[in-house]
Amino acid sequence: MSIARRGMMLVLSSPSGAGKSTISRRLLDGQNRLTMSVSATTRPKRANEVEGRDYFFVGRDRFEKMVRDGAFLEHATVFGNLYGTPAAPVKEALARGQDILFDIDWQGTQQLKEKARDDVVSIFVLPPSRTELERRLHERAEDDAHVIAARMAKANDEMSHWAEYDYVIVNDDIVRAQARVEAILTAERLRRARQPGLSAFVKTLTGEGT
Amino acid sequence: MSIARRGMMLVLSSPSGAGKSTISRRLLDGQNRLTMSVSATTRPKRANEVEGRDYFFVGRDRFEKMVRDGAFLEHATVFGNLYGTPAAPVKEALARGQDILFDIDWQGTQQLKEKARDDVVSIFVLPPSRTELERRLHERAEDDAHVIAARMAKANDEMSHWAEYDYVIVNDDIVRAQARVEAILTAERLRRARQPGLSAFVKTLTGEGT
Repeated sequence: MSIARRGMMLVLSSPSGAGKSTISRRLLDGQNRLTMSVSATTRPKRANEVEGRDYFFVGRDRFEKMVRDGAFLEHATVFGNLYGTPAAPVKEALARGQDILFDIDWQGTQQLKEKARDDVVSIFVLPPSRTELERRLHERAEDDAHVIAARMAKANDEMSHWAEYDYVIVNDDIVRAQARVEAILTAERLRRARQPGLSAFVKTLTGEGT
Repeated sequence: MSIARRGMMLVLSSPSGAGKSTISRRLLDGQNRLTMSVSATTRPKRANEVEGRDYFFVGRDRFEKMVRDGAFLEHATVFGNLYGTPAAPVKEALARGQDILFDIDWQGTQQLKEKARDDVVSIFVLPPSRTELERRLHERAEDDAHVIAARMAKANDEMSHWAEYDYVIVNDDIVRAQARVEAILTAERLRRARQPGLSAFVKTLTGEGT
């Protein structure tokens, strides 16, 4: 018995320092049948990067035409470079039941939801405490007070959007946080709406299909 | 860090023979912090039953007054006896973050959803195949053809309501089926809407609360 299913876009957002990237990496390394969304970007390719694995590297003209054609699920400008998620490979993956992980901020999440609300499962990851968040931001910024203040302001801005997410997880322990995201993934796969093959399956149970 | 949460009504429905009662018992026996909803009934108390644990035993007049007063979340007549879920203890449990398990049919589920849509998480359990369902119904009915035909018709009627549920699980293996329900329970507890304490917690993170 195999029931046809539809994939989901699993979105993880969090302030910098809440552990979202670590959780993403662990999810992809585990037995979760998850793939990471690959973005297109106008930023130059670095030596260690592979086209189609790390990014789709495209020129600015082509990127801007894709924006005009509505070919992106979400896009943004970061430090002058354009980044975006091409819609076509995602649509194709969802149709064959492949779930896709997105590590994006609240603005990207909002754009995804506008384009494909029913396929988005959004999770916001919070740090366990302000002290712990500050400690992690200190580590990264090597104690430059201005940089830390700027990062804290950015974290506060990101956290102010927690209520736009379906699920909220507090990352007080990385193993537990990962297990929680995996439980959400398991549960969401069991949603009736993500199992389009159920209708045919129930017919075999009731004898309608015979 | 402890975040105030709101309980849910976890509803399991299935045709007879799909294993719902076994899953319910295993869920209650496990470390799931789940309690079973206790129904009121007009049926006479049996020797081994305990008032308030198995049922609330009430007279027919009192039951009918409770129906008129809207004191039930759902109620039904089975073989001439009245059964119903009193709303007050459920509301009280949900408010203190206690999750409650309901083992009810599609009609009861529909009534619950009319009364308290946001607090209901509904799961439909399907058997793995028609052959397996027939086998299980045979075992129970001791091979009386009329009884089996009647049970199969009832099972088909119940199964025709699968699409009214949030989640659908195929019970091909009891351990896996239990794990799936537990993943749904874990995930639903992490829903933003079931964690009313988040708002206060995020304030402590952003410094607003200090």
